[in-house]
Amino acid sequence: MSLDSRDRETPGALPLDETGSDAVSQRDFRDAMASLAATACVVTAGHGANRLGRTVTAALSLSVEPPAILVSIDARSALAAIIRDTHGFSFAMLSETQGPVADAFAGKQAAEHRFDYGDWQDWSSGRPRLLGAVAALDCAVIGEMEVSGHILFVGGPREIDLDPSRKPLVWHQRQYHAVNPL
Amino acid sequence: MSLDSRDRETPGALPLDETGSDAVSQRDFRDAMASLAATACVVTAGHGANRLGRTVTAALSLSVEPPAILVSIDARSALAAIIRDTHGFSFAMLSETQGPVADAFAGKQAAEHRFDYGDWQDWSSGRPRLLGAVAALDCAVIGEMEVSGHILFVGGPREIDLDPSRKPLVWHQRQYHAVNPL
Repeated sequence: MSLDSRDRETPGALPLDETGSDAVSQRDFRDAMASLAATACVVTAGHGANRLGRTVTAALSLSVEPPAILVSIDARSALAAIIRDTHGFSFAMLSETQGPVADAFAGKQAAEHRFDYGDWQDWSSGRPRLLGAVAALDCAVIGEMEVSGHILFVGGPREIDLDPSRKPLVWHQRQYHAVNPL
Repeated sequence: MSLDSRDRETPGALPLDETGSDAVSQRDFRDAMASLAATACVVTAGHGANRLGRTVTAALSLSVEPPAILVSIDARSALAAIIRDTHGFSFAMLSETQGPVADAFAGKQAAEHRFDYGDWQDWSSGRPRLLGAVAALDCAVIGEMEVSGHILFVGGPREIDLDPSRKPLVWHQRQYHAVNPL
């Protein structure tokens, strides 16, 4: 965590003990993390002309009571700022056919062109609602903390779209994968 | 977050704003979370006769500078206590053939029999080292916080085993899956 990020007025900012953190190379670490197969997801926020979004794989189910998911967003990003300002985010687990959406929101398209990819409507909150996903959740931010240059947003789902018949788009070893039951 | 858990002396315990969190049913939320395809991983800690471990899917890559992963562990578990007491954990991303290891550490075997499954050695720290995984990391705890009955442990890797030729074991829709490039 940089001094700069620590200086921000973030609730729950967590200082890290980085003693000896150079014991492994960044390259080995990146390669290990590339091995962690994960669903390609898109986190969006805002509404209308002020929508923003980003492809993420850093998301997890935090608890069932209360229902809560956790997503990690770059603390310096405009997306983190808009999530904080609007107290919510929309979360979509992409389906196998939504590779172009994943690519666009991963940065292959500029911010203003990303919503040209995928079929978007609005949740009742006004936040972006992606159709055709395996699951999509409109979330209110119910907690947040900053750690290591990232904001961990805890989202409490307010609305859920779900189609378990769709297959997920999985990111693994720096390419898209499909899943099949063993 | 219960009052009980809030009362513990946990650094960075984060209160949640649960206002309106009953807007979606727990069943819908569980089904949505079951749709989030994720690598089956095993988190272990301790050493010798005091080893403990648990299968988890709630893990993510937090940052590269410093290298850091985040895992979510039930705050009431003996595993969380031993990770805290020993300031470290071992993290293994299971490979396609390690379903029996995933089952054992998910609770199909009692704690004292779980290490009978899989080929285990020790890291130089003394923590359990699972052979045959896609990737395995021995981590020092460099940060932690409690949220919603779970401890989020931030791990700084000290040693890494890596075999990108192995394929990951993925948990999705409550069953194991293999991945294949699209």
